[in-house]
Amino acid sequence: MRLRDEKKKEAIFDATIALVNEIGFAEASTAKIAKAANVSPATIYIYYKDKQDLLTSIYIEVKKRKSSATMEGFEASAPIKETFQKVWHNSFRFASTYQGYIQYIEQFANSPYYDLVEDTQSDDMFKPVRSALAEAARQKLIRKVDFDMFVAFTFYPLAMLSNTRTTKNLRMTPKNIETAFEMAWAAIKL
Amino acid sequence: MRLRDEKKKEAIFDATIALVNEIGFAEASTAKIAKAANVSPATIYIYYKDKQDLLTSIYIEVKKRKSSATMEGFEASAPIKETFQKVWHNSFRFASTYQGYIQYIEQFANSPYYDLVEDTQSDDMFKPVRSALAEAARQKLIRKVDFDMFVAFTFYPLAMLSNTRTTKNLRMTPKNIETAFEMAWAAIKL
Repeated sequence: MRLRDEKKKEAIFDATIALVNEIGFAEASTAKIAKAANVSPATIYIYYKDKQDLLTSIYIEVKKRKSSATMEGFEASAPIKETFQKVWHNSFRFASTYQGYIQYIEQFANSPYYDLVEDTQSDDMFKPVRSALAEAARQKLIRKVDFDMFVAFTFYPLAMLSNTRTTKNLRMTPKNIETAFEMAWAAIKL
Repeated sequence: MRLRDEKKKEAIFDATIALVNEIGFAEASTAKIAKAANVSPATIYIYYKDKQDLLTSIYIEVKKRKSSATMEGFEASAPIKETFQKVWHNSFRFASTYQGYIQYIEQFANSPYYDLVEDTQSDDMFKPVRSALAEAARQKLIRKVDFDMFVAFTFYPLAMLSNTRTTKNLRMTPKNIETAFEMAWAAIKL
């Protein structure tokens, strides 16, 4: 893709997330998104078949960026607490920096659109983490639980903690971030 | 309110949640909700000023039912682990039984409507739990953390664990429910 096209596509990406978070899925028409992205409505249809394709494609792209950011600097050979600490802090940083992305993901996952996507790509990116955890469980360093149980008590809380809209009274200071990590680790360690 | 009116109001309540979860906030018009509830559109406007009033009122009602179910059998005088176990299991049972309610709450909290509500009523119902936890923290039985941090690692994971749409591979057997409780407790205990 040419640079100019990349820029347009990124503008559509940003505008879709901002607009959906502001006025909701159904109100965010492709016409409004095009206007906010400063592109012609026809431009959207070059990249996306229809509104549903646009919304689900952007969900998948956000998940991909999230997985990619989470996996940064991942080393399978490090001790499990270090490995986990690395991906947990990556994940927290991403969620805090891109609150709008997380809000979009959560809204999407609780919307009717969710049933239409097969999200295997970001699952695949997470495979090294799943393997490292499975190995640590085998060594009885952490609990042997279903991966979803693991996520529910470690990464899932970040969606709440990083959301300054819903947790208005909580300030995630470096001390609170460290305590939150220790709570996540305490939930899984043996 | 007369019994017949109560029934109508409950039909509107059920229809709104079902329809919003199926087709999303903006697509769920009052006309469609009235049809699904088997009442006339005018009936909705007897109870609610407009669509926004309907959606936010139902959010507040769902939260109230959730808080009330969570607090069932709460005893401030019991040891903290027992107290916590009681409300945690209440909360899990509610979330599993009324998955549609939780989906509505999550979708609402990530939607633009959320900024319009002051939700003090269900916060008030939770006060005894907050007090019991604060006292336990003072006694160094559990971590002394912000209430939101506490919720993030104990109750918030239930929204994920009880959602059979998003956690398709996880079966919450009695054994898994017990393990989940132990993980929540491990996250907070000292």
